[in-house]
Amino acid sequence: MSTREPLLLTPGPLTTSLATKMAMLRDWGSWDQDFNALTAAICARLVRLIDDQSQSYACVPLQGSGTFAVEAAIGTLVPREGKLLVLVNGAYGKRMARLTRIMGRACSVLDFGEIDAVDPRRVDQALADDAAVTHVGIVHCETSTGILNPLEAVAAAVAGRGRGLIVDAMSSLGALPLSVRTTPCEAVIASSNKCLEGVPGMGFVLARQEALAGAADRAHSLSMDLYDQWHYLKQTGQWRFTPPTHVVAAFAAALQQYDAAGGQPARLQRYRANCQALVQGLQALGLRPLLAPAVQAPIIVTVHAPQHPNWNFSRLYERVKARGVILYPGKLTTIETFRVGCIGAIEPPDLEAAVHAIGAGLAELQIPTGTPLAASNPTPS
Amino acid sequence: MSTREPLLLTPGPLTTSLATKMAMLRDWGSWDQDFNALTAAICARLVRLIDDQSQSYACVPLQGSGTFAVEAAIGTLVPREGKLLVLVNGAYGKRMARLTRIMGRACSVLDFGEIDAVDPRRVDQALADDAAVTHVGIVHCETSTGILNPLEAVAAAVAGRGRGLIVDAMSSLGALPLSVRTTPCEAVIASSNKCLEGVPGMGFVLARQEALAGAADRAHSLSMDLYDQWHYLKQTGQWRFTPPTHVVAAFAAALQQYDAAGGQPARLQRYRANCQALVQGLQALGLRPLLAPAVQAPIIVTVHAPQHPNWNFSRLYERVKARGVILYPGKLTTIETFRVGCIGAIEPPDLEAAVHAIGAGLAELQIPTGTPLAASNPTPS
Repeated sequence: MSTREPLLLTPGPLTTSLATKMAMLRDWGSWDQDFNALTAAICARLVRLIDDQSQSYACVPLQGSGTFAVEAAIGTLVPREGKLLVLVNGAYGKRMARLTRIMGRACSVLDFGEIDAVDPRRVDQALADDAAVTHVGIVHCETSTGILNPLEAVAAAVAGRGRGLIVDAMSSLGALPLSVRTTPCEAVIASSNKCLEGVPGMGFVLARQEALAGAADRAHSLSMDLYDQWHYLKQTGQWRFTPPTHVVAAFAAALQQYDAAGGQPARLQRYRANCQALVQGLQALGLRPLLAPAVQAPIIVTVHAPQHPNWNFSRLYERVKARGVILYPGKLTTIETFRVGCIGAIEPPDLEAAVHAIGAGLAELQIPTGTPLAASNPTPS
Repeated sequence: MSTREPLLLTPGPLTTSLATKMAMLRDWGSWDQDFNALTAAICARLVRLIDDQSQSYACVPLQGSGTFAVEAAIGTLVPREGKLLVLVNGAYGKRMARLTRIMGRACSVLDFGEIDAVDPRRVDQALADDAAVTHVGIVHCETSTGILNPLEAVAAAVAGRGRGLIVDAMSSLGALPLSVRTTPCEAVIASSNKCLEGVPGMGFVLARQEALAGAADRAHSLSMDLYDQWHYLKQTGQWRFTPPTHVVAAFAAALQQYDAAGGQPARLQRYRANCQALVQGLQALGLRPLLAPAVQAPIIVTVHAPQHPNWNFSRLYERVKARGVILYPGKLTTIETFRVGCIGAIEPPDLEAAVHAIGAGLAELQIPTGTPLAASNPTPS
């Protein structure tokens, strides 16, 4: 095990600030008013993040990973006799459909392949074709590739057909702007440890209170019952079951730093600079991102692997890790890729160091600069 | 908000050691071998905790609170056409029945009131009477009161009738001995932040691998699918979804300290000393525990409130908190009580300090020593 703390380019977990981690050096009573105040402050801040000027939304925090929050939102907001249409262009869209089916809700999928953004016209058509669909699920930034989906246009199409939209904004919220005034939706879901740079252990759902209020006794699971969590929090100021108190305290600290640094515009600017430093550096090494710049979110970059007999992601990973940088494997089914995150408490010089480590790793594997890259998607659109 | 870290007598979250909290000052890549090794070490240690000499059990960690782990164990181990009999003598038994019904499994309850231990003879009879019951659920130490249930005798009764036992050992595991050689069962469930003194944010299930192996595609929920979590962990060494990395690191540190301090016998001895210091001190203040010593686990003590017009738990709580000690409210429906935990990284002098704070708080409320106590259970057995 390395003794120095590594630079995590694996969103997430991602690199957090020391101030965020130090907020965990205290124990909190989960029943205590001091802790309730921490929860309330986090929730109030998160609701402001989606520009909810009509105070229509509530923040419901939930223990566990981001997927838990996605499951809770769907299980609570989609009626048992409802139907969810999931817009899929990667692993997280697929997972949303999978968890919906497992809980016994009707679900259909509109598949956009792995490297194309969701097309709002096809969404509109699918809703025209299937009156049974009550809700639509979309992943704002699909971390499988880093692709940015056209959220506002999709939201307009869904609202135009009178259906409810559920947004998995796990990898985007806090960095990319998201206003419920221009993105009408039932819920926005995210977690503590993506662009808001907390530590992992909790997710949250920003849900329309009217939708929540009608969702009593609907969930398929006690733990995943977002209505019950919301109702109890409203009544008592407390989480229903033991919260991850240290994670919550770290998240509160992370949000304070977020505001002190300038909030969403500043975060987006820093991530864009990170992404630019990364992409430029990779290109200088002869490597190339998978996505066209127009659909590349400054969150995570998928990189074509070199087409060379010595290529082996695990071997590159170990060599880059020896230089203190943790990469992320690719997640595409048809093209050999790897991924590098741009988010976390990191800045352009960190990305430059990562590029240097990748270059040194490739040299050690005797893969020369200028090696042709792994084949593009065999079925481009 | 108080500036000094309080003494938490609220299991849990509970007071953890500084070494445990300091283990959270590092970020971990959840895909990395170093982190996988951490998970593997924790799981191996936890399996040893239940004296599994035949290597029949697997440890499956799960994100979220202890209740999440209870739900996952039941949703995965009880077949959809199975039936769970829950032995209830407090809030956690009730919750186990509630979550079982919500997930759509058949469930019946054997109710022992609030202050009596589970009676194995009644369990045997109930199993004789209802052939549909496939599994029995029990809470080892019911934190609502602190009562210790006769686990081995119940396990023998359940095994004698050929049914499977699911043990919620949330508040006992690590302090009270639990051997699967004398307590035959399908699963033992606990969390990071009770007697093992980690921070909250994950639970775990020690489940019979044979039972797990037959449980594919059975769960009512993706997040709560313990089979899927187990299978993925076995295949990859990783958690399925983002783990609470800092919580996991703290848990590993807590387990190292546990072993260094002498493991289960030493922990039980310390908690017994804590409990004794607490009970003796309370008695000197004219207060009295609810439970008979024979069924009082040295985990949490339920205390009769004084029967006095000035009594108000919230007011006492604030006064005791001003002295740096966090108490826990009572959870009984029929008797006015409050609770004081004996577990966490605390020692008898801490309990003496807590007693002093309670005494000072009562004096400030002008409730004299020797005030009669709130009435006992109106329906004693």
